[in-house]
Amino acid sequence: MGRDVSNVPSAAPAAVPPLRGDARMVRDHIDSLTKPPGSLGRLEALALQVGTVLGDPPPPLGRALVCVYAADHGVAARGVSAYPAEVTAQMCVNFGAGAAAINVLARSCDARVRVVDVGVSADLSAVGGIEHRKVRRGTADFTSGPAMTDGETLDALRVGVETCGGEGELLVGVGEMGIGNTTSAAALVAVLTGAAPEEVVGRGTGIDAAGLARKVAAVQAAVERVGPGRTPLDALREVGGLEIAAMAGAMIGAGSRGGVVLVDGYISTAAALVAVGLRPELSPRLVASHRSTEPGHAVALEALGLEPLLDLELRLGEGTGAALAIPMVRAAAALLREMATFESAGISGRSGRAGDREPTP
Amino acid sequence: MGRDVSNVPSAAPAAVPPLRGDARMVRDHIDSLTKPPGSLGRLEALALQVGTVLGDPPPPLGRALVCVYAADHGVAARGVSAYPAEVTAQMCVNFGAGAAAINVLARSCDARVRVVDVGVSADLSAVGGIEHRKVRRGTADFTSGPAMTDGETLDALRVGVETCGGEGELLVGVGEMGIGNTTSAAALVAVLTGAAPEEVVGRGTGIDAAGLARKVAAVQAAVERVGPGRTPLDALREVGGLEIAAMAGAMIGAGSRGGVVLVDGYISTAAALVAVGLRPELSPRLVASHRSTEPGHAVALEALGLEPLLDLELRLGEGTGAALAIPMVRAAAALLREMATFESAGISGRSGRAGDREPTP
Repeated sequence: MGRDVSNVPSAAPAAVPPLRGDARMVRDHIDSLTKPPGSLGRLEALALQVGTVLGDPPPPLGRALVCVYAADHGVAARGVSAYPAEVTAQMCVNFGAGAAAINVLARSCDARVRVVDVGVSADLSAVGGIEHRKVRRGTADFTSGPAMTDGETLDALRVGVETCGGEGELLVGVGEMGIGNTTSAAALVAVLTGAAPEEVVGRGTGIDAAGLARKVAAVQAAVERVGPGRTPLDALREVGGLEIAAMAGAMIGAGSRGGVVLVDGYISTAAALVAVGLRPELSPRLVASHRSTEPGHAVALEALGLEPLLDLELRLGEGTGAALAIPMVRAAAALLREMATFESAGISGRSGRAGDREPTP
Repeated sequence: MGRDVSNVPSAAPAAVPPLRGDARMVRDHIDSLTKPPGSLGRLEALALQVGTVLGDPPPPLGRALVCVYAADHGVAARGVSAYPAEVTAQMCVNFGAGAAAINVLARSCDARVRVVDVGVSADLSAVGGIEHRKVRRGTADFTSGPAMTDGETLDALRVGVETCGGEGELLVGVGEMGIGNTTSAAALVAVLTGAAPEEVVGRGTGIDAAGLARKVAAVQAAVERVGPGRTPLDALREVGGLEIAAMAGAMIGAGSRGGVVLVDGYISTAAALVAVGLRPELSPRLVASHRSTEPGHAVALEALGLEPLLDLELRLGEGTGAALAIPMVRAAAALLREMATFESAGISGRSGRAGDREPTP
């Protein structure tokens, strides 16, 4: 059984600062805006979160950042993906050329993309447009032993902490690429939440029934090997991935810089479970962007108390759901900055007198 | 019983041109992009629609337009809204000042807003920042007689056709402001679909139980007065609103200019029922932006065969849901314009060979 390394000071991820807004005051502000109370639905809840995290009014969010971490997985050799492992490296080339879905979607919403090779099996050192921070070439097959060593786990976390900013972005989405990584995410969610393998394993990018059975068996083997009661860092080393560790680090790093973190789909949410396990004060900064078609995503979201903004049946990863949610977070922040109150606009409340306020229904 | 005026040539709304893309070719293009088939879920369906309507690749969408039509309703005197009728005029001042929710959300997603007074009861001629196209001061109470005359109905439609463009926008959202207009929308949906008043009446901006009962009674009275088998234009004149007529006209106008039309919430969807009734060829250009909390919205959406992109529990109107969906339509269009194919990127398909394609699951 692995040593719990969460107390190793030199490698501990950065601290997350206190929130800048007072939730009650932000709520009062939202209720004073020129609209029936609650009529902007979940956008009001998002505005409340943004104002609480960033202060009210929040600063202009400007350009957002989407970080994409790429790595390979030893467990891929067990036939758990519809795609061969080479696709991880090929997609990194595609990311570098700016032609993958995440590049397009990020450009479309004025977000910058950083793609970081934290553990792709191939040598990508000649590939332009991506960052080279390889910790090792893919993880070991976690069905028979730890995916990584303690040191590799901490190194991958640190890569995430160090690469999730750079231009002061306050809105950071965290995505991934890694053939086999829904299997790793499933094992991580099973180990950390106690859910059964069947509850957390899905079709990923589109595997057939036989492949699905192999995925369930792989997760079952990992859960049996690792056993219950593991710390988040422990679980990460045993069944996680290099990109998942980096994603957890990126979330903590973005939080430590004072930002709002957009969690993407299943793998990103598994990384968020680890990040919140390491730094519970990160929790109010997380926004779940979309609901994945992976069944285990609901398990991970529930464990984090998150409700996604979008439900578009996405199952691509790369941070694509996070990119699609970026305009909504900007919109929520803009409401706090720019919208008139009943009083300032001289508009009648329910009783008919200008400036009257009413409680949220 | 009113004359069916849909054949009056001088006032007929503009014709809607043929679509510019071939759905099958757009589908093939989407399936060739560097992602597992179907993995972008509903964003792929949206890309298919955008490519079919605008051509593939679609032109850059640039700045979008949100048109907001404002008018008052005679039925408001029956106590069917939580807010006094003066709020329609007060909100027009707020729109003109650029400080209402729709102004803020539209700015946040780079959309222009046009606010048109097509029938507010107050004199707004001195209010800046809005357009003055008043057809009459509010409708008559439709529980006891037609809401408008034939001529007023056609005039309001024409206001919509004429005000829904101007800078060549290809993406046009259509919203509204009008105290009492969920009651008009409910009556319109009941008359056009045959649904029972209880199925189509909801709490609007937040009315109490007694008010809800008054709304149901008003819709019931209207349905009994008007009777079944009415044409869309007939129903519009009998139980519609001036802003609802203008919205139907705006949708037809935006379609006639070759654009994609973003339908907003309940009232906007009721207007879309009328618009598609008048111009069935408009149908493939409609995108439902969000699912309203109003129960009748589902009835209207089903009648149109539309599935909304967002489900954020919005119930404000103004075009706010349409504004929130604008970035998603831009994102879908960008996928068609900018994303690499498996072949162009040299990426392996499921069998492991570069450029292999697989069918949609």
